[in-house]
Amino acid sequence: MKIHVVNPNGSAEMTRSLEAEVQSAAGAAGCEVVVTYGGSGVPASIEGYADEAASLMPMLRNIRSQDRAGAAAHVIACFDDTGLDAAREVAEAPVIGICEAALATARIVSKRISIVTTLERSVPIVEELVHRYGAADLVRGVHGTAMPVLDLEGGRGDVMARLLPILGGVVTQDRADALVLGCAGMSQYTAALERGLGVRVIDGVRMSVHIAGALAAAQVKTSKSGAYAAPRSKAGAVFA
Amino acid sequence: MKIHVVNPNGSAEMTRSLEAEVQSAAGAAGCEVVVTYGGSGVPASIEGYADEAASLMPMLRNIRSQDRAGAAAHVIACFDDTGLDAAREVAEAPVIGICEAALATARIVSKRISIVTTLERSVPIVEELVHRYGAADLVRGVHGTAMPVLDLEGGRGDVMARLLPILGGVVTQDRADALVLGCAGMSQYTAALERGLGVRVIDGVRMSVHIAGALAAAQVKTSKSGAYAAPRSKAGAVFA
Amino acid sequence: MKIHVVNPNGSAEMTRSLEAEVQSAAGAAGCEVVVTYGGSGVPASIEGYADEAASLMPMLRNIRSQDRAGAAAHVIACFDDTGLDAAREVAEAPVIGICEAALATARIVSKRISIVTTLERSVPIVEELVHRYGAADLVRGVHGTAMPVLDLEGGRGDVMARLLPILGGVVTQDRADALVLGCAGMSQYTAALERGLGVRVIDGVRMSVHIAGALAAAQVKTSKSGAYAAPRSKAGAVFA
Amino acid sequence: MKIHVVNPNGSAEMTRSLEAEVQSAAGAAGCEVVVTYGGSGVPASIEGYADEAASLMPMLRNIRSQDRAGAAAHVIACFDDTGLDAAREVAEAPVIGICEAALATARIVSKRISIVTTLERSVPIVEELVHRYGAADLVRGVHGTAMPVLDLEGGRGDVMARLLPILGGVVTQDRADALVLGCAGMSQYTAALERGLGVRVIDGVRMSVHIAGALAAAQVKTSKSGAYAAPRSKAGAVFA
Amino acid sequence: MKIHVVNPNGSAEMTRSLEAEVQSAAGAAGCEVVVTYGGSGVPASIEGYADEAASLMPMLRNIRSQDRAGAAAHVIACFDDTGLDAAREVAEAPVIGICEAALATARIVSKRISIVTTLERSVPIVEELVHRYGAADLVRGVHGTAMPVLDLEGGRGDVMARLLPILGGVVTQDRADALVLGCAGMSQYTAALERGLGVRVIDGVRMSVHIAGALAAAQVKTSKSGAYAAPRSKAGAVFA
Amino acid sequence: MKIHVVNPNGSAEMTRSLEAEVQSAAGAAGCEVVVTYGGSGVPASIEGYADEAASLMPMLRNIRSQDRAGAAAHVIACFDDTGLDAAREVAEAPVIGICEAALATARIVSKRISIVTTLERSVPIVEELVHRYGAADLVRGVHGTAMPVLDLEGGRGDVMARLLPILGGVVTQDRADALVLGCAGMSQYTAALERGLGVRVIDGVRMSVHIAGALAAAQVKTSKSGAYAAPRSKAGAVFA
Repeated sequence: MKIHVVNPNGSAEMTRSLEAEVQSAAGAAGCEVVVTYGGSGVPASIEGYADEAASLMPMLRNIRSQDRAGAAAHVIACFDDTGLDAAREVAEAPVIGICEAALATARIVSKRISIVTTLERSVPIVEELVHRYGAADLVRGVHGTAMPVLDLEGGRGDVMARLLPILGGVVTQDRADALVLGCAGMSQYTAALERGLGVRVIDGVRMSVHIAGALAAAQVKTSKSGAYAAPRSKAGAVFA
Repeated sequence: MKIHVVNPNGSAEMTRSLEAEVQSAAGAAGCEVVVTYGGSGVPASIEGYADEAASLMPMLRNIRSQDRAGAAAHVIACFDDTGLDAAREVAEAPVIGICEAALATARIVSKRISIVTTLERSVPIVEELVHRYGAADLVRGVHGTAMPVLDLEGGRGDVMARLLPILGGVVTQDRADALVLGCAGMSQYTAALERGLGVRVIDGVRMSVHIAGALAAAQVKTSKSGAYAAPRSKAGAVFA
Repeated sequence: MKIHVVNPNGSAEMTRSLEAEVQSAAGAAGCEVVVTYGGSGVPASIEGYADEAASLMPMLRNIRSQDRAGAAAHVIACFDDTGLDAAREVAEAPVIGICEAALATARIVSKRISIVTTLERSVPIVEELVHRYGAADLVRGVHGTAMPVLDLEGGRGDVMARLLPILGGVVTQDRADALVLGCAGMSQYTAALERGLGVRVIDGVRMSVHIAGALAAAQVKTSKSGAYAAPRSKAGAVFA
Repeated sequence: MKIHVVNPNGSAEMTRSLEAEVQSAAGAAGCEVVVTYGGSGVPASIEGYADEAASLMPMLRNIRSQDRAGAAAHVIACFDDTGLDAAREVAEAPVIGICEAALATARIVSKRISIVTTLERSVPIVEELVHRYGAADLVRGVHGTAMPVLDLEGGRGDVMARLLPILGGVVTQDRADALVLGCAGMSQYTAALERGLGVRVIDGVRMSVHIAGALAAAQVKTSKSGAYAAPRSKAGAVFA
Repeated sequence: MKIHVVNPNGSAEMTRSLEAEVQSAAGAAGCEVVVTYGGSGVPASIEGYADEAASLMPMLRNIRSQDRAGAAAHVIACFDDTGLDAAREVAEAPVIGICEAALATARIVSKRISIVTTLERSVPIVEELVHRYGAADLVRGVHGTAMPVLDLEGGRGDVMARLLPILGGVVTQDRADALVLGCAGMSQYTAALERGLGVRVIDGVRMSVHIAGALAAAQVKTSKSGAYAAPRSKAGAVFA
Repeated sequence: MKIHVVNPNGSAEMTRSLEAEVQSAAGAAGCEVVVTYGGSGVPASIEGYADEAASLMPMLRNIRSQDRAGAAAHVIACFDDTGLDAAREVAEAPVIGICEAALATARIVSKRISIVTTLERSVPIVEELVHRYGAADLVRGVHGTAMPVLDLEGGRGDVMARLLPILGGVVTQDRADALVLGCAGMSQYTAALERGLGVRVIDGVRMSVHIAGALAAAQVKTSKSGAYAAPRSKAGAVFA
């Protein structure tokens, strides 16, 4: 049972750090993972709608190809859940985003959720996802940390020293029961943050692997009779 | 890794049929299950708010006791997700309802969902859950089948002959991509219905076992710092 | 014309103080009241979902029995409006909760409402009621006072000294036109708080008696043809 | 304790029929009523936004003057709840609309509500009120009957023969538990309709008198510190 | 192509300042404008629901008469969008409010909008419009400035000195991308505020003229087959 | 004053027919237009999320380049409003979609709106836009016509004969005041449909040109301080 995890951005370094997290989760979930990413020509991080647009076609091609190669489920490892609907059209196996996985988990274990993301400009994007997933009553705040995605790579100590007081302030302000890490790059700090904050911390990367594994084991497939039907064949069609 | 599945009602026969479904799902999910039920003095089926009330305390006692005995996750196997919030207060392990599990799955694979339940009187209860889980934009209809829960037990052929035309009409009317079976007693007919209807059919019983297994493998725990904190100790307290 | 007021919790002392408030309101409303409570074996206060569950069956039995004895309306005197739907199934006479009565009144006389409750853990429960009653646009905040229900009993002076600055801060922060007291135990302080705060203060206990009296005088009955139909007869049925 | 009921339109005949209903309700509610209406120069029925506008100032003057004369509560006896907010500004006593009163009652006794009004053009107006009162989840349909308000006056038999099949169809289509009569002119047929339809029928006229009586007995006053503060004094001010 | 702009209030001075803004916008929009106002007997400013009521009939008469005189579109130049629905009934040409125009523009150029109005009592009125126009997810706050409408007239320097720090605080608090000026009287300060605040500032007066011009050029007419049908003819009818 | 209209798809024929509509509207609006399209390698029609994804980058490049060449506003001429947010990031001038323009117009002239689109699979996409633009309370239905986009090209007579009965049925079923044409390809039939249906018909293509012209004349610019800030510079960045 193989799970495909795609990092939509073009950063090889972030992909390696993602792969470590994902392999560890896959071990616990009892499944294999294969990790792909956007490669060259794709922005090194997804910070805004145009970055999403630029990452879309390489990501969809990765999903299409892994789907045909037998992946039993796909994970989109960017907290913007970039291109989720299009991905569901081009795949037979189920597709889940890490924001979706994190919220699906957080609402099972808590009633007041805070989300932290990187830049302020990503806040409206995440708020739109919160509405899409029907969690607006549960999520008390989506907060920027003013840390660009790429700053999260590398030196753990320094990142933690910058993140801890910001996230502590968020939890207090929102009177949150659970904190969702709104960026794949924060995944590696989950355990350290939970210790440092004394509050439940949820990482969409790990959870998406577990939920994808569950969907795969249950042999769930994307419905092909409605909105997620395969793209139609026509002049210029890319996936038909 | 042990999953506890509780049938809140008092029907031993329905519990046996549930156990068969659940064992089969657990096999696929790679986990063990233990099944409990309300026992005598509890209504044989949950059809309305007062039936829910009557099943609540025995169910919570089962959850509390299995939680202390080491269950890694709990499933409430009634489509009303009876007592879900109270269950989360008395357990450390995560608790999921079968309506919750079914909707969490259906929204990953489709955009237009129909739900069928048994009696018309359960329709508003399920609609309230649809709102709670933030799926009101996706669910196109919740429909009674005018079949009492207890009629679903036993003779497969007859039940199928009654269910198929009703459910087919529902799918057509709602132009649905996916059909959710809104009663634990329908679980046994999932595969036959999918064949008969030619549409994706989602059964909350099976999916709840898979998702509970994923939560357990990810070592997710209920947040105890907010709404789901353990009951307070006081005169008359039952669970403190 | 007799109104039945049920205190779901097990505190005799709180019931006595409730009875005083209720008798005074009933005098003004021109009706009789009978007051019942959960008695022994029920938590002395309702602070969370599990406490609600533990109080449910004794409360429903009280309602059923007073309904058969001719009560013309029922009041559930806990701000969580515990078991309201189940109560409507087992009674012919209309049933109203004190949160429901308070919000129904507050929205007639104001447009910006603050609600104060006791513990922080009750905040999500009250917020869910605010949504249920369709008042989310009007209610600007639901606030915990960090005072357990049982601290509200007894010594008036001390309680007022603790409550006044907390409630004053809430009104200022929310720029509220009206303050709703979100706990039956606060009822006795209504007049003193209105004087101390200089703002309209609404007490669900008094208002529920007046509204119940109006429903009774109008000979309104619960609809028995849909969601509030009487529980069905079956093995293990308690109320059928 | 005097309740003021204002019919915003200019029909003396409809006002007489309203007064009969209102006096009967007041008798049951144990209060006095005084009935006023728009008089000449005001449309004989309120069918649309411009008719509402034309009735507004005479109605507000009636409310202002009865408030100063000691009315303990006011009822606006038009199902559009015409000018409700402005009325609350010019009165100290609480003001309630008959749509508001009908929905407040219907949601206590049922979960699926149908509303019938006169002309199709009033449907969006009533739907806006349903949203305002937070009852959108409960109201399954607002339906025109294609009967102008003025046709409801006079000959009972003929009106009933036309109304019954229309309303029966509405109840069936919406699978409604309760039917709200969305026009003051229908009030006189309430009991006959309940017998004819076999379903709970709710008349806002009667209920508004009972609820107004309850508010008056509870000595509830409109909050004057926020949105309903008295109009400010200035050049051209009418009510300051 | 003539646009009719109606100031519902009775202030000749405010109307003159409005006319200056409106003529300048009309020049850029390539259309003519005619400006009317409430005249004597109408409140000099619209601050609350009763002031709206008092301005309604003179405003509707102005709209009716300009519509018959060939106006191709109408603008209601009060941020409460006073009587918008009634105006649409009495006119054939399209009618737009300045709050509506401002929000329609702001949502095209930004995702986080702050609105400032004059008195605190107008805040709920504007919030209701925000809901009506479906912009509740975009508008982060509606704020009173504690400046009465009439203080905005006259001495530019002093007004700016009072407004700038208030509006700067609002933008920071809401982390807004765009600031909407919620009062026709603020229109004249738009450019100065944009310079002073360093943020996009949107003035509904100017935008309403441009959008009205666009509707007129496109020959758009109000639909007369539904909610905005002309008032019906009857006794007391004013506009039929 | 130049308006840029981009057809995201790759059909030269549909672009020519679009250009004719657009030039006619531009004439009435008093502005110039330049029309671009996706060109080869882009699907000939946008029918679903993957088609949108495939059209995105060529469209954004067209917008970027026309923005730098001085376009005063941009129109995205696909009823899915494909890539609207990303377009706003890469442009200084305002960007409007044709669905957005159609709904902004329809809500000014009516209260009950029907939308017709081509294939059933586009229905959920349009429903999501209806929610985004806050028009869910006004739009009574989004309907597929089972006509693929490409069938709308060419032979007028035949298309009309197929469209008229379908659209007539939609208007009757929804009791609509206004009908929005949910596909750029339907634009050419607007006048004929309005005559044939006897109801107001709104075409987003024409309206978007008029509104874009109004925004341009008012010198409105996209806010660059928040969600629509220009893409950040980084490795792999395409637009920074």
